[in-house]
Amino acid sequence: MSQEKPLILIANDDSIHSKGIRVLTEIMSEIGEVVVVAPDSHQSGMGHAITMGTPIRVTKTETFGPNIQSYKCSGTPADCVKFGKHYILKGRKIDLMVSGINHGSNASISVLYSGTMSAAIEAAMEGIPAIGFSLCDYANDADFSHCHDLIIKIAQQVLEHGLHEGLTLNVNFPAKSESPIQGIRVARQAKAVYREFFEERKDPYGQPYFWMDGFLHNEDLNNGTDLDWLSENFATVVPVKYDLTDYQALEEMKHWDFTI
Amino acid sequence: MSQEKPLILIANDDSIHSKGIRVLTEIMSEIGEVVVVAPDSHQSGMGHAITMGTPIRVTKTETFGPNIQSYKCSGTPADCVKFGKHYILKGRKIDLMVSGINHGSNASISVLYSGTMSAAIEAAMEGIPAIGFSLCDYANDADFSHCHDLIIKIAQQVLEHGLHEGLTLNVNFPAKSESPIQGIRVARQAKAVYREFFEERKDPYGQPYFWMDGFLHNEDLNNGTDLDWLSENFATVVPVKYDLTDYQALEEMKHWDFTI
Repeated sequence: MSQEKPLILIANDDSIHSKGIRVLTEIMSEIGEVVVVAPDSHQSGMGHAITMGTPIRVTKTETFGPNIQSYKCSGTPADCVKFGKHYILKGRKIDLMVSGINHGSNASISVLYSGTMSAAIEAAMEGIPAIGFSLCDYANDADFSHCHDLIIKIAQQVLEHGLHEGLTLNVNFPAKSESPIQGIRVARQAKAVYREFFEERKDPYGQPYFWMDGFLHNEDLNNGTDLDWLSENFATVVPVKYDLTDYQALEEMKHWDFTI
Repeated sequence: MSQEKPLILIANDDSIHSKGIRVLTEIMSEIGEVVVVAPDSHQSGMGHAITMGTPIRVTKTETFGPNIQSYKCSGTPADCVKFGKHYILKGRKIDLMVSGINHGSNASISVLYSGTMSAAIEAAMEGIPAIGFSLCDYANDADFSHCHDLIIKIAQQVLEHGLHEGLTLNVNFPAKSESPIQGIRVARQAKAVYREFFEERKDPYGQPYFWMDGFLHNEDLNNGTDLDWLSENFATVVPVKYDLTDYQALEEMKHWDFTI
């Protein structure tokens, strides 16, 4: 492979066996040298978990054919990025890290629960420009064909402009439908909330267990959020930062009495 | 218990069996009606993981004596908060959620990996004023005695002022030393980075596995960050928000070419 091609690290949370990472790997191979480090099993909802107190297994695979360097990892999505940067690609400059394509939306507050987005955020913490891609379709055989040109466009924009330190992009695509995607909109994260409920069941030995279920409830409507644009068949780009400091609150809290 | 006492939900990530949550439960019992829902095993580094595709077990315990309602949960710290709010305390207004006291620092970027802080952030997402408490001492038998008055002070300030929607406090205490804590400082999250390395070993069957190890490396010095103040023996309060949108980047990206 040409040394002029950008070096692209890929991870996800749906595992190395998912269709979404296969599609993303194929697309990224068009523009760069690709290295994949992805979980060996499903890691959805893992958030920014890292493996502590347990060793990690990593195995070289030929999941994407003999020409694509790929590894499956027993750890979390964030672990995959750390292992990719600090072990497999040690000493090499990674030009871009992409995560996904996630089977299911990571818009709004799902960014916090998402292993796919945490992998991208982990890369940003490591100083690598990073993008998380998600499709609003949870099916294992979801159709990603309408995302190809948009992914190329967004990745090329990031390679061209760079991303300032600490910034990650959270990109979501509407599910494939009869009408084409209307365009790409940069937007803020919608302030929605998960409404959870717990269904109690009994196991065969009479002991209780609970299934957690829920849905995203959004009252933050018609405000140009990611959810607003997705509902109108636009792809959305939310610039995400990992400095969680609320600077406005930091000013306000100067009036609190913390004398001890 | 008096109905005028505030209702306080407690969780952590070090498990219901840790000393930190016992200390926090004792302190909170001085000012409110306490309900504990905490992991039944260690969940450090779990970030904002939630349990998906697996049922959850929850068992009532008497870990803190017969007068404190407490439950151990097989799920993650975030699961514990969801279960506490939507099942155990369904229909009741929770006045305060506190998480910890964590055995070990959650300052700087550790906020993103921390199950303790994710439990507090989860509560904020549910509209509950929430505080995560951590001690910069990883020992199982860490000495928390110097934190008592500060925890009461901070909790009372939150009960008095409230926290605006979406805000959580990340509170860190220096380890106990001969000199008393100098005071409390509101500060931003230091921009540090974990420097990881992977140690390869062979299992008894000759197969490789890896231990991930690392340390926090901080070049963001003398800027009034949480790490700066902790190093001078102050307790730190970082106001944390879960809206990850980078609003500055959102403006800048309006100039990007996203035409398709």
